[in-house]
Amino acid sequence: MPAITRLDNERKIKSPHGTTLSAKSWLTEAPLRMLMNNLDAAVAEKPQELVVYGGIGRAARDWESYDRIVASLRSLEADETLLVQSGKPVGIFRTHADAPRVLIANSNLVPHWATWEKFHELDRKGLMMYGQMTAGSWIYIGSQGIVQGTYETFVEVGRRHFGGNLAGKWILTGGLGGMGGAQPLAATMAGASMLAVECQPSRIERRLETRYLDRRADDLDQALAMIREATAKGEALSVGLLGNAAEIFPELVRRGIRPDIVTDQTSAHDPLNGYLPAGWSLDKAERMRQSDPEAVIQAAKQSMAVQVKAMLDFHRMGIPTLDYGNNIRQMALEMGVADAFDFPGFVPAYIRPLFCRGIGPFRWAALSGDPEDIYKTDARVKQLMPGNPHLHNWLDMARKRIQFQGLPARICWVGLGDRARLGLAFNEMVATGELKAPIVIGRDHLDSGSVASPNRETEAMQDGSDAISDWPLLNALLNTASGATWVSLHHGGGVGIGFSQHAGMVIVADGTKEAARRLERVLTNDPATGVMRHADAGYEIAIDCAKEQGLKLPSIGSSASGSSPHR
Amino acid sequence: MPAITRLDNERKIKSPHGTTLSAKSWLTEAPLRMLMNNLDAAVAEKPQELVVYGGIGRAARDWESYDRIVASLRSLEADETLLVQSGKPVGIFRTHADAPRVLIANSNLVPHWATWEKFHELDRKGLMMYGQMTAGSWIYIGSQGIVQGTYETFVEVGRRHFGGNLAGKWILTGGLGGMGGAQPLAATMAGASMLAVECQPSRIERRLETRYLDRRADDLDQALAMIREATAKGEALSVGLLGNAAEIFPELVRRGIRPDIVTDQTSAHDPLNGYLPAGWSLDKAERMRQSDPEAVIQAAKQSMAVQVKAMLDFHRMGIPTLDYGNNIRQMALEMGVADAFDFPGFVPAYIRPLFCRGIGPFRWAALSGDPEDIYKTDARVKQLMPGNPHLHNWLDMARKRIQFQGLPARICWVGLGDRARLGLAFNEMVATGELKAPIVIGRDHLDSGSVASPNRETEAMQDGSDAISDWPLLNALLNTASGATWVSLHHGGGVGIGFSQHAGMVIVADGTKEAARRLERVLTNDPATGVMRHADAGYEIAIDCAKEQGLKLPSIGSSASGSSPHR
Ligand SMILES: NC(=O)c1ccc[n+]([C@@H]2O[C@H](COP(=O)([O-])OP(=O)(O)OC[C@H]3O[C@@H](n4cnc5c(N)ncnc54)[C@H](O)[C@@H]3O)[C@@H](O)[C@H]2O)c1
Ligand SMILES: NC(=O)c1ccc[n+]([C@@H]2O[C@H](COP(=O)([O-])OP(=O)(O)OC[C@H]3O[C@@H](n4cnc5c(N)ncnc54)[C@H](O)[C@@H]3O)[C@@H](O)[C@H]2O)c1
Repeated sequence: MPAITRLDNERKIKSPHGTTLSAKSWLTEAPLRMLMNNLDAAVAEKPQELVVYGGIGRAARDWESYDRIVASLRSLEADETLLVQSGKPVGIFRTHADAPRVLIANSNLVPHWATWEKFHELDRKGLMMYGQMTAGSWIYIGSQGIVQGTYETFVEVGRRHFGGNLAGKWILTGGLGGMGGAQPLAATMAGASMLAVECQPSRIERRLETRYLDRRADDLDQALAMIREATAKGEALSVGLLGNAAEIFPELVRRGIRPDIVTDQTSAHDPLNGYLPAGWSLDKAERMRQSDPEAVIQAAKQSMAVQVKAMLDFHRMGIPTLDYGNNIRQMALEMGVADAFDFPGFVPAYIRPLFCRGIGPFRWAALSGDPEDIYKTDARVKQLMPGNPHLHNWLDMARKRIQFQGLPARICWVGLGDRARLGLAFNEMVATGELKAPIVIGRDHLDSGSVASPNRETEAMQDGSDAISDWPLLNALLNTASGATWVSLHHGGGVGIGFSQHAGMVIVADGTKEAARRLERVLTNDPATGVMRHADAGYEIAIDCAKEQGLKLPSIGSSASGSSPHR
Repeated sequence: MPAITRLDNERKIKSPHGTTLSAKSWLTEAPLRMLMNNLDAAVAEKPQELVVYGGIGRAARDWESYDRIVASLRSLEADETLLVQSGKPVGIFRTHADAPRVLIANSNLVPHWATWEKFHELDRKGLMMYGQMTAGSWIYIGSQGIVQGTYETFVEVGRRHFGGNLAGKWILTGGLGGMGGAQPLAATMAGASMLAVECQPSRIERRLETRYLDRRADDLDQALAMIREATAKGEALSVGLLGNAAEIFPELVRRGIRPDIVTDQTSAHDPLNGYLPAGWSLDKAERMRQSDPEAVIQAAKQSMAVQVKAMLDFHRMGIPTLDYGNNIRQMALEMGVADAFDFPGFVPAYIRPLFCRGIGPFRWAALSGDPEDIYKTDARVKQLMPGNPHLHNWLDMARKRIQFQGLPARICWVGLGDRARLGLAFNEMVATGELKAPIVIGRDHLDSGSVASPNRETEAMQDGSDAISDWPLLNALLNTASGATWVSLHHGGGVGIGFSQHAGMVIVADGTKEAARRLERVLTNDPATGVMRHADAGYEIAIDCAKEQGLKLPSIGSSASGSSPHR
C-alpha cells in the first residue's frame, strides 16, 4: 500500500497568472490552473487537506495524487486524455484533438453499497475521495456562487409574485451561517429588504464586516422599525436580528405582521448541531450537546415544528413561503406537523421553470488572473443581452460588492442559446487579443440537465421521474462526444452519498477556430439536455423552449422536433 | 401520457442483409441492424415484448420507441448523435464525425432508490426499461456467448490445474437449464467429459436434440460407466443424469469417487422456483409452490446446504470446485454452513487473471448476413494468433457445433493488443472487398474494465475496491472520447437492480481509414481500462501487462508508465 498524505501544512497552492504556459497548450494549462485555483487559500476551506468546500469535498485524493495530476497535465499531448478516478490520476490514453483532455469519475459506488459507512471505509483505505460537485471537477469559484444562486431564487420569486419588482418588499428568514450569510446580500442585490434572525452574535458581526449585511438590531421592535423605514422609501436594507427564529417567526404571526417572502436557512438538517432550541442559551446548547444529545435533538425538532407552523401560517396568508433545502419541513413532519410539506421546496417552486429553459449557474474564469478580463466579459454580456435588467443589475452589483477569490471569475444564470452566444463571444475576445489570456467556461453540477437528486434538484418532477439517473449520465456522455475540455461524473454531491448523481463540464475558449466549433456544440448541447429532460417529463415551458430553439426530440411529437421520425 | 405498446404479436423483426443501406451510412446502418437483430425471433427470447434475454432485458422501451429509434437512425447525419434513455430515443444533437452516433443510458437509478420495487414502479409508468447487459445495448448474439464464457472458464481451470490439457478429465455439475445447458457443450469443446445432474427429463431431452449434450443416463452406475469409458480413452463425452444434485453429489462423496472439477448451475439463486428439494417429485414441488411457498424455500435451502457440504468435501480433497454465479454458497451459509464460502466464485478464481490482461468476451457480427464473412474472419483470427491452440480449437468447434442466430457472429476471448490487431485486420478485409459488408465489433458488459459488480465480476478484489463504480463510468467516457460507434451505461445487469453498474461499446469497421484510426484507439483503450483497473488494485499480472504494452499509468510507478510524471 503506497504512502498517502492528506494533510500537508507546507503546501501553499496558487494558480499561475499570465500567459506563460507550464503545460503544452492552453487546453491542458486550463485544468492545471483550475485545479490549483480550487486549492488556493483564498478559495478553499481547508487547502492543506485538499478540501475545497462542502464538508470534505476534495480537489484531489491526496498530495501524491495531486503532484501526479500536475505532472500528467504538464506532459499531456494534444491528442491524449487523462483519466482521474476519485481524485487520483490512473491513466493517460491516446484519443484525438476534439476529445476531452481530462475525464473524471468521483465517489461513485454501486448502489447497494452507496452509504456513508462504505464510502468512509474506502476513503480511509485510500481508494476514494468525496468530490462534492465543483470541488472534484475543478470549477469552484468561491462564495460568488451561493450569492448568485440565492439572488436568482429571490429574483424569480419577485418575477412570479411581484411583477419582477422587489422594491419596497421584505424577506423574513433565519440563519446567517456559512451559506445562509449570503442571503442579506442576495436580497439587497435583488432589490428587497431582509430581516434575518440569527442566534449567534458572532455570525451577525462577521456578515457586517464583509458588508454582506447592512445593519444589526437587538430587538424585534428596532428591527421592524428599520425595515418599515427602508421599505417605505423603496430602499433595500438588510437587518440582522439577534434572536431565535422559533420565537421570532410565531411572534410576527401573533402581531399580524406580513413579510412579503418567507424562508429559512438555519441548519435544520442537523438537529444536534445546527439548530438552537427556543428559550435555550448558546451555552446551554453547548453543554447539553455533550451531556444529553438526544434531549438536544428532541428540543431542536420541537422548536423547528413551532417555526414551521408559523411558516405555514404565513403560507396560508398567501405569502410566498419556501424551503431552501435545509430539510426543516421533514423535521417538523417527524414531530407531527402533518401539513409541513404544504409550502414548497425552492427548486420545484422557483428554479424548475428556469431549468426548463436550460437556465442555470453558468460561470467562467480568466486564466490570465487579471480582473480586467472579467470586467470586459461583464461588459460584453450586457451588450449581448440588452433585455435582461436583472442580469445587468447582478453584474453591476457583483462587481461592486463581491471580491474575487483566486482567479477572477463570474457567474450568472443564462440558458440555452445564450450560453453558446456568450462562449463564442468570449472566444472571439481571446482571438482578437482584447482579453489577455483564454477563458474557461463551466457550470455547477446543480444545473438543468446534469443532475438526478430526488431530495433537491429533481424533487417532485411532474412525471415522477425524480430518481432516474440516466439523464446526468447521458449529459456527461454527450459533453464528452461534443468536445468539452474536461467532463466529470460524481455521486453524492449536495445531499450526500446515496442521494444524487451528477455531471460536470468545463470548456476552454482559447481563441482558436477549433475551440469556437467545440464551444458552439458543447454550450448548446449541455443546456439542451436540460430542456430535453424537462420536456420529456412533460413541462410545457421546456416543450415550448425546445420548439423555439429547434431541438430535435424524437419522442416529443413532430411539432418540437426538427427531424421528426413520425413523417 | 402517450400510449405505449409493450406486446405486439404482429411484429416480426429481422435485420436486413446485404449492402443496400436504409440509413445514411454504415455507421448508422450498423446500430439499426443490430437493434433489429437483437429482436430477431431466432435471437430474442420474447421478441413480441421486445425482450431479448435475461428475464426482462429489453432492446427498446416499447414499440413506439422502437419505431422512433429506427426512424431516427435512418435520418441521422454523419455529425449527429442520438441519445437513448432506457430504450427511448430522447434527443438528436450535433457532434462530429469522430463522436459516437448513439449514446445510451439504461435502467440507472440514484442509489438510495435503486431497488426492484422502485424500478418496477417506474417501468410500469413507462419511464424506464431493464436493459440487462447486451439487450439494451444492441450486441446480443444468442447462446454462443454463454457457451464461450463457460468454455473459457473450463479451459482456464484446465490451464491452472491440468497443464492446459483436459483430455481424460471429467467435470461434475448440476442443472441443464437456459444457461446451464451450455455446460456439456462447453466441456466437450474444452476436451473434458461431463456428468450433469438434472432433475427434469424434458431439459435433458432438449439438450440432446440440439446436440449440446451427448448421452442420457437414468441411474448413477450407468452414468459413471459411460464417463469411465470415455475418460479411459481420453475422449470427451457429456452425460445427462436424471436425478437430484442434492442426492447425487453426496452419494459420489460416499462412494469415494473423484471428479476432476466440480461446479453447479441449478437455479439456486431462486429457492422458490429454481431448485428441487431432495426426495421431492417435480409434481410435489409444483403443488407446494402454490400451497406452501415458505416450506418449499426451507426445503430447497436445506437441500442446497447438503449439496454445498458435498462440494466442500470435494474442495477439501483438492478438487477444483467453483461457484458459477448462482449464489448457492450464500444459501448454504444462511442454513448454517459456516464454511460455505471456502470454495471460490469463478471470477476471482479463474476469470480475473484473464481480466488482468484485458482478456474478455470480444465479439463481432457480419452486417452482410453472410456466414462466409464470419468464416473468413475466423480464418484471419487463426492466422493472426498462431500460438493459441485453445482459440483455434474454439473457432473450429464453434463453426461445427454452434448454429448462427440472426446475423452471423463470432465470440472469442482476446485481450489488450490482440483486439486492436483483429479489428484493424477486419477493417482491412472490408476495405479490400474480401468481406461483403462492414463488421461490427463489440463485447459483453461483463468484461475486464467495464463493470463494477461486487457479487460477481468484482467479487473479492484484492484491494477491497469491489463496490467502486468510478471504473465503468470512466470506461464509457473514454470509449466515447475515443470514437466508438455506440456507447452505453447500464445499471443492474446480471445480478439485478442495485447490484451492478456497467458499460458497453460497439464500433463499426467499415473499411475506411477513419474507421481504422478509431478502431485502433477504441480497441486499445477499452481493454486497457481493464488492465489499468486491475493494476490499480495491485494485481501483478496487470502491472506486468501494462508494462509490456507500454500503458501510461501515472500512479503505478515509472516502470509501468510510458510518460511517468515522477521524473
Ligand atoms: N442549494 C441549497 O439547497 C442550499 C443552499 C444553501 C443552504 N442550504 C441549507 O441551508 C442551511 C444553512 O446552511 P449554512 O451553510 O448557512 O449552515 P451553518 O450551520 O453555517 O449556519 C446555520 C446558522 O443558523 C443559526 N441558527 C441555528 N439555529 C437557529 C435558531 N433557532 N434561530 C436563529 N438562528 C439559528 C446558526 O447560529 C448558524 O449561524 C443548511 O441546512 C443547508 O443545507 C441549502
Ligand atoms: N455468469 C454467471 O455468473 C452465470 C452464467 C450462467 C448461469 N449462472 C447461474 O446459474 C444458474 C442457472 O441458470 P439457468 O439460466 O440455466 O437457470 P434455469 O432455471 O433455466 O435452469 C436451472 C436448472 O436446474 C435444474 N435443477 C433445479 N434443482 C435441481 C436439483 N436439485 N438437482 C438437479 N437439477 C436441478 C432445473 O430443473 C433447471 O433445468 C442461475 O442461478 C444463474 O444465475 C450464472
